[in-house]
Amino acid sequence: MRRYFPILDWSKTYSKDTLTSDLVAAVIVTIMLIPQSLAYALLAGLPAQVGLYASILPLVIYAVFGTSRTLAVGPVAVASLMTAAAVGQLAAMGTPEYYGAAIALAFLSGLMLMGMGLLRLGFVANFLSHPVISGFITASGLIIAAGQVPHLLGIKASGETLLELLHGIFVNLLNINIFTMVLGLGAVGFLFWSRKHLKDWLLARGTRAGLATVLTRAAPVAAVAVTTLVTFAFGLDGYGVAIVGTVPQGLPTPTLPPFDLALWSQIAVPAMLIAIVGYVETISVAQTLAAKRRQRIDPNQELVALGACNVGSAISGGFPVTGGFSRSVVNFDAGAQTPAAGAFTAIGMALATVFLTPLLFFLPKATLAATIILAVLTLVDLGAIRRTWDYSRTDGAAMIATILVTLGFGVESGILAGVALSLFLHLYRTSRPHVAIVGQVPGTEHFRNVDRHAVITAPDVLTVRVDESLYFPNARFLEDFVQDKIAANKAIRHLVLMFPAVNEVDSSALESLEAINSMLKASGVTLHLSEVKGPVMDRLRRSHFMHDLTGEVFLTQYDAMAKLAPQLTAKTLAACRRDTQRAVAG
Amino acid sequence: MRRYFPILDWSKTYSKDTLTSDLVAAVIVTIMLIPQSLAYALLAGLPAQVGLYASILPLVIYAVFGTSRTLAVGPVAVASLMTAAAVGQLAAMGTPEYYGAAIALAFLSGLMLMGMGLLRLGFVANFLSHPVISGFITASGLIIAAGQVPHLLGIKASGETLLELLHGIFVNLLNINIFTMVLGLGAVGFLFWSRKHLKDWLLARGTRAGLATVLTRAAPVAAVAVTTLVTFAFGLDGYGVAIVGTVPQGLPTPTLPPFDLALWSQIAVPAMLIAIVGYVETISVAQTLAAKRRQRIDPNQELVALGACNVGSAISGGFPVTGGFSRSVVNFDAGAQTPAAGAFTAIGMALATVFLTPLLFFLPKATLAATIILAVLTLVDLGAIRRTWDYSRTDGAAMIATILVTLGFGVESGILAGVALSLFLHLYRTSRPHVAIVGQVPGTEHFRNVDRHAVITAPDVLTVRVDESLYFPNARFLEDFVQDKIAANKAIRHLVLMFPAVNEVDSSALESLEAINSMLKASGVTLHLSEVKGPVMDRLRRSHFMHDLTGEVFLTQYDAMAKLAPQLTAKTLAACRRDTQRAVAG
Repeated sequence: MRRYFPILDWSKTYSKDTLTSDLVAAVIVTIMLIPQSLAYALLAGLPAQVGLYASILPLVIYAVFGTSRTLAVGPVAVASLMTAAAVGQLAAMGTPEYYGAAIALAFLSGLMLMGMGLLRLGFVANFLSHPVISGFITASGLIIAAGQVPHLLGIKASGETLLELLHGIFVNLLNINIFTMVLGLGAVGFLFWSRKHLKDWLLARGTRAGLATVLTRAAPVAAVAVTTLVTFAFGLDGYGVAIVGTVPQGLPTPTLPPFDLALWSQIAVPAMLIAIVGYVETISVAQTLAAKRRQRIDPNQELVALGACNVGSAISGGFPVTGGFSRSVVNFDAGAQTPAAGAFTAIGMALATVFLTPLLFFLPKATLAATIILAVLTLVDLGAIRRTWDYSRTDGAAMIATILVTLGFGVESGILAGVALSLFLHLYRTSRPHVAIVGQVPGTEHFRNVDRHAVITAPDVLTVRVDESLYFPNARFLEDFVQDKIAANKAIRHLVLMFPAVNEVDSSALESLEAINSMLKASGVTLHLSEVKGPVMDRLRRSHFMHDLTGEVFLTQYDAMAKLAPQLTAKTLAACRRDTQRAVAG
Repeated sequence: MRRYFPILDWSKTYSKDTLTSDLVAAVIVTIMLIPQSLAYALLAGLPAQVGLYASILPLVIYAVFGTSRTLAVGPVAVASLMTAAAVGQLAAMGTPEYYGAAIALAFLSGLMLMGMGLLRLGFVANFLSHPVISGFITASGLIIAAGQVPHLLGIKASGETLLELLHGIFVNLLNINIFTMVLGLGAVGFLFWSRKHLKDWLLARGTRAGLATVLTRAAPVAAVAVTTLVTFAFGLDGYGVAIVGTVPQGLPTPTLPPFDLALWSQIAVPAMLIAIVGYVETISVAQTLAAKRRQRIDPNQELVALGACNVGSAISGGFPVTGGFSRSVVNFDAGAQTPAAGAFTAIGMALATVFLTPLLFFLPKATLAATIILAVLTLVDLGAIRRTWDYSRTDGAAMIATILVTLGFGVESGILAGVALSLFLHLYRTSRPHVAIVGQVPGTEHFRNVDRHAVITAPDVLTVRVDESLYFPNARFLEDFVQDKIAANKAIRHLVLMFPAVNEVDSSALESLEAINSMLKASGVTLHLSEVKGPVMDRLRRSHFMHDLTGEVFLTQYDAMAKLAPQLTAKTLAACRRDTQRAVAG
């Protein structure tokens, strides 16, 4: 019961102090979330109020199901862009079908996440490698930022890829609306400045540190208020400044997503991608923050929680939500102690939906574009390309490929290419286990790689140390390897497979071992094993292999050599061994 | 050059002795192949001569490109069944479209194989785990055998799943044609008996051993000849015995597969499945046989060769071909020395196509059905289910699932489910690396798993030994694991990650290590590494991690403990260490 309702855990010890901390954090996050939620709804091609709707029920639900104390769930940039890309293929922006598809997307990806959580499939998210997800987010950030430039300049240009966007902006440069541009670039400039310098400026003027922090966080709200007032006062909407316009007042009414199998099958892949990308983002933030206070995250329960949030978003007229990085950090820094802070934020957002929406009529879309640009530029990490490339060529290539495909063909192609590439590289790597031919370090019982150490080997004994578990993807490699070595050296009479690091031998690998055994038998070579771990040995004993094995199983590689190549410095070794044993026993 | 044309290698040393051996083997394989090729063509739903066509050019091509000395390429049961399943969805049996689609299937799967070979992607075949392929082949064998029963009994019944077939047979039991049944069951009985006893019977009657072997192999040809004669003599075709009828005489004319993109995209998945299943079968046989003579197979060149064979089959009017198990074994046993034996078999088949086809007019289809049943029953290995289950529950479950899906939903669903299951299990396993918390074995420098050995640990030092390489699928697991342990024990001040078996740390794992480091830093725990391998260390030094690392990198775990927990039996250890070193050095 507690596994699925973490609220039962933390609510028991809920105190007045915790309440105060959570309330303060909730106020700060609400201030941050109001402009962001509107902006991300527009980014997803949806009416502004949808962003508000997605910031109420999901937050309450996360408070019930979530295991992170500080994660702030809600609309985020990348998921909004992915929503726009997915839904844009199915319906025209502004139509009820478009909105319905976005709701269905949230619902379906929520169901998928919950299903994965109940089946405990959290590990699936691991298969998005870090270079791929990092490249994808950088590229998405660039596309989102480029997509906001037309709003800043008051021109029309759209596209799913960077080239389309840049081309659209370029050919429309002459249609710039000067009022929009002044408001938009002014907002960008102010937000940039306030992020870097507002706090210091306030502190220098004697503001208290706590208040300075809150005021700095409120800078986007100030930008919203000022540009809205200016637009209203000068009637700039009459001069072509795009404004948000009527935002329906009041709480969302419960809705059901369209139950249309054709639609669901069309959005299945995007829903899965949004689910996985959103989950990876969520779990990364949640773990980073939980670790700072030595708290625990249950990755599978996070799937359930995030899934429930998305289902909740859908049935309250919202679109896909995720645990957002920057908002969660703000929540954490502001002192949130429990998920109740999220529930309080939801109350704040509900109040905004009821009372604030009429004030948003004259809010220029350029201001929201400025908010988005500031938010996504923190996602763009071009330096990571260089760092990753320097560390590993393979990973760097995967990252660059993901970025190029995302920029050139859109987010869906980008993330699909990234996933495919990650999986391919993984399968390729695991298809070759690390093996080494080893020999004896003179005067010791140690056996080391012949390529790296000066070691003794017997001409008729080949010892292969296997450094990984043997299972179907790599089992055949060992067969090939042994076949190669045996074919290349006709002097070999004994093959010893040394299994010190083999934790598992699955049925396919067992079949390979049997094949190796009978192949060696046919060519007059005896197969031995050494240093086989207990659980592996137990299992091998249950098979026919132990019965067919032409040679022996030695406890240590030294025992194997003592038996198979006694001529090899036998005396020195025995003496040394006795001494060592005596020394260790003493 | 030689890599892609192995013929350049073996032809240099081709001698008169080799020629004799190859010719003898070719005669025996030709005798076996004539009825089989006709039967498998009918199994694939194609005219009988298509089987002959698929047994000429592909064999010549394999002689040029193949690296196995003894592999016999041609039509095989499972690939024929898969062809019928794939093409049956696109066109009605007997139409030119059906035949065209079968040719296109061979062509496309040939191109795929060649592409994989040139890109050196042979490892992809490893991801069909042994239990899955074995279960698939068993289930296919059962479906094929059940599908031949109607031909044996002279009734009409068809289906893609075992249930459909059994149901069809049952409801038609009253329509049995008595003449067909006598011929069919007679042929089955004769073939069964001759496989088990003919050789002994001949030897007991004084036949020379060599001749007895050839005569035993020729039993299917005898069955064909006798039943054809009986049908002709008594005019059984007039009594409802289905016969092969007119088989066009003469060599195949070069054809091009239909270049129809819609068709190609429909057959892409089946072509890929046939390619991979065929390749796995081919490479298994080839390696088993090559090993017996200490010869080498190049898995990637085998892809090229098998691909070329299929393209060759397509352009000479044939259908998908594979290296067959039983025929290759016969070829090997008969003494084939080089792939030239295959080319000689092709000549035999060409002669059969030119001269033999008129004689096949009265051949009863029931005889061919009997041939197929005998051939596929060797594929069915029900004992393997038990063996696999006893060895490993996971593998057993994968095998049973593959068998059930294949029997219940047909070959394509079966192999797809098997591949998906194999991959899923693989990803699941690799998402959790083997890690152990270790402590010191008293009086030694050895560190062992605390769960399995009586060891000493320090209360404020946690040592985690990582037994596998760290990369993106398992990197997050370590993060979770460490987070769990640190959250559970507030006394810990030092964490040592012991890397004796870590051969690789990719960018994602590096990111995880950095996350672990900063998480530990935030909770006041120092992170150390020990026993890091040289290449891994070189790479870590190129990253920022070494700069951020809060603790040290120790050469050995003993050094780490000596520094971090000097109070722990320090004196005993130091003394013991000195003694041991002296002993080893001596």
